[in-house]
Amino acid sequence: LNDTQFLADFAAMSAIGATSGGGVEREAGTASDHAVRRWFDSWLRKHGFRREYDGIGNQFGLLEFEPGAPWVLVGSHLDSQPLGGRFDGAYGVLVAAYAAARVAVEARAGTIRPTVNLAVVNWFNEEGSRFTPSMMGSAVFTGKLALNTALATEDLAGVSVAASFADSGMTSDFSLTPVAAYAEIHIEQGRLLEDQQRTIGLVDGTWAASKYQVTVTGEQSHTGSTVMRDRRDALYGASLLIAAAHDLTDFYPEGSLHSSVSQLTVLPNSPVVVAREVSMNLDLRSPDERILSKAMNRLDEFSRSISEQANVRIEHRLTHHWGLLSYDPEGSRLTRSIADDLGLPSMVVKTVAGHDSTNMNSLFPTIMLFVPSVDGVSHNEREHTLDEDSLSGLTMFSELCRRMSRGEFPARSSDGGYPATGRGQRRG
Amino acid sequence: LNDTQFLADFAAMSAIGATSGGGVEREAGTASDHAVRRWFDSWLRKHGFRREYDGIGNQFGLLEFEPGAPWVLVGSHLDSQPLGGRFDGAYGVLVAAYAAARVAVEARAGTIRPTVNLAVVNWFNEEGSRFTPSMMGSAVFTGKLALNTALATEDLAGVSVAASFADSGMTSDFSLTPVAAYAEIHIEQGRLLEDQQRTIGLVDGTWAASKYQVTVTGEQSHTGSTVMRDRRDALYGASLLIAAAHDLTDFYPEGSLHSSVSQLTVLPNSPVVVAREVSMNLDLRSPDERILSKAMNRLDEFSRSISEQANVRIEHRLTHHWGLLSYDPEGSRLTRSIADDLGLPSMVVKTVAGHDSTNMNSLFPTIMLFVPSVDGVSHNEREHTLDEDSLSGLTMFSELCRRMSRGEFPARSSDGGYPATGRGQRRG
Repeated sequence: LNDTQFLADFAAMSAIGATSGGGVEREAGTASDHAVRRWFDSWLRKHGFRREYDGIGNQFGLLEFEPGAPWVLVGSHLDSQPLGGRFDGAYGVLVAAYAAARVAVEARAGTIRPTVNLAVVNWFNEEGSRFTPSMMGSAVFTGKLALNTALATEDLAGVSVAASFADSGMTSDFSLTPVAAYAEIHIEQGRLLEDQQRTIGLVDGTWAASKYQVTVTGEQSHTGSTVMRDRRDALYGASLLIAAAHDLTDFYPEGSLHSSVSQLTVLPNSPVVVAREVSMNLDLRSPDERILSKAMNRLDEFSRSISEQANVRIEHRLTHHWGLLSYDPEGSRLTRSIADDLGLPSMVVKTVAGHDSTNMNSLFPTIMLFVPSVDGVSHNEREHTLDEDSLSGLTMFSELCRRMSRGEFPARSSDGGYPATGRGQRRG
Repeated sequence: LNDTQFLADFAAMSAIGATSGGGVEREAGTASDHAVRRWFDSWLRKHGFRREYDGIGNQFGLLEFEPGAPWVLVGSHLDSQPLGGRFDGAYGVLVAAYAAARVAVEARAGTIRPTVNLAVVNWFNEEGSRFTPSMMGSAVFTGKLALNTALATEDLAGVSVAASFADSGMTSDFSLTPVAAYAEIHIEQGRLLEDQQRTIGLVDGTWAASKYQVTVTGEQSHTGSTVMRDRRDALYGASLLIAAAHDLTDFYPEGSLHSSVSQLTVLPNSPVVVAREVSMNLDLRSPDERILSKAMNRLDEFSRSISEQANVRIEHRLTHHWGLLSYDPEGSRLTRSIADDLGLPSMVVKTVAGHDSTNMNSLFPTIMLFVPSVDGVSHNEREHTLDEDSLSGLTMFSELCRRMSRGEFPARSSDGGYPATGRGQRRG
């Protein structure tokens, strides 16, 4: 369980679903996702964990120190984007597993005495590239998404989540309860830590976000013979909107609004038929709720004028919206003091991307940490974190796990009990 | 073979692959395409034609009046776009079949004596929506596309043209030769005839066209956390180019440039990954070669500046390019005099869209006729041609077929023989 062994295990894990460009491709429920889960099964059993799956295929490794005591849960996800990076999610799962296993070794040696139980988790389908929505496993775990709805979700080829598990034995009626707290470490996927030369990001909140499903409706016609003024070209309308959504970020201070369209379907998608319909996603994200709100209004205006210009109908439906979400301030204080004790340069950051911790944070005291991403590159085969940073994160998270196992987060209330779990959603 | 029977047969044929919106869906090599071909097989046999298929599945109905004499070929295509119209192609095949069958009746009655043989054709895959390129059957027939290349062409699901024929018996080693001339009638798919209140369009040429395959290359990154200035978003670059290609038509007089992008593929097409690659088609068409050439240069400029603006690489490869193509002037004179004799209001028009006659025109004396499209609508379930216009086209084409069967097109040379076939491509 030393650092050298960690790097070796990380390399072994990264070989599963490896791509020629140095990344991995392990979309949820595919053969390579199943393969990495089986690899992690063996790892957990070898290191004395009890392995369980719940109804949506979240994979748990359990260390029961105090039967009946609450569980402190740590982990992330092993699935990836198509042509994704080796670190996104997988790093956090292996760090959590090592950190918990190190606590178990110390507990057996009698050098620490855990007062809670520890569980490691590999959440199912965090990425959401094959099955929408993303963060599916943690959404079911926290009751935000019904299990049956999740299992019935189909990919573009019509294969359901349930069918993707087939007879893998990767679901059961197990459920982990009660949960006292959650902690996750992840690569930053941005360049703040690198730019500021810090090793540990103490995540104090999640950017506000609005996610839309957009449908642009025109009418089929001949791409050659139809005169231009008669056309109702859905792809032209969609293109104007994609460009407008991108250029919208220029209206606000740099770094205060992110915008993206990345998934798009054209009907009938024929070389000689003007498109009758384009459907696509559209995301706006900001660390400032007022800017997000202004950007949403401006998008509405653009949408109306583009709809006239291209003679198409544009419907944009808000499918997800959240304001700034704060992580537990007590967790931030604890992790800040651990980083200082270990001499690791740290800074407070916000996460732009959603994580399983975003779901967990709405119900349980939650801690989120980052390690640097080289050049901020992620969702890309070139995604990279230096060994040095990777191991600093392991040291940091191991100490956090040690402290949590002793009941330091969440702190016991004055009567010695744990705070009730199942809190409502907190907003900062 | 009277007009009432024609309309009834056209309705029966339109029921095959019928869509709820009043159109048809008979993409090349699908079950409904096979079904309409079997229906046409029966029709041909019932009316005394010998039915043959060639290597690429072009479907022929033969009337051999003079063994050894050259063939005059008439026809169009029965395949359609997805959610396509009933008339596009299918109208021309049934008109050609009726016109030829009427000649056969008169020949049997002894009222005319054909000096050439007549063949009706249903060209395979004119539309090109499933298998690219379009006009595939006539391209193979005229040697522009190798048979093996055509048979190996795959649709987006990986099914080849050869596999789409499976054991249908719709290919053989038959070949129709020698061919003396070709004639086709089609719906206009534009609104010139309707605007000018003419019934017959005498097509004297094809618009010049440039067709590109465009690849926009960016880099995968996270749609949320990647800062805007670090993104190399291929879909943003593609959208700017689609909008620019559309707005390019505003630089020239109305009706002098048509432009379109209608087929697009995004990689990886995930809701949380900035697109690394977009590939798409891009067409420019003009009745004026100078305007086309200026537009092509302007597109190059736009492409360069967009590539800088979006920080992406744009490659646009010219896959097809042709100047104005003239149809045989002798054919235009003949059809003009037939229309006048029949009292049908006609006008000379150009075709914007490519047709099988475009391929045939490069090798054989070729005639192309149009009937009006209501509102110019085509590649759409609402595509429509009035019965009155439809029957005028039948009358016109029947008389043309009668004249061609007597050797009036191409006119015999002074020594009484037919001009040699296999001419090079003519350009106007």
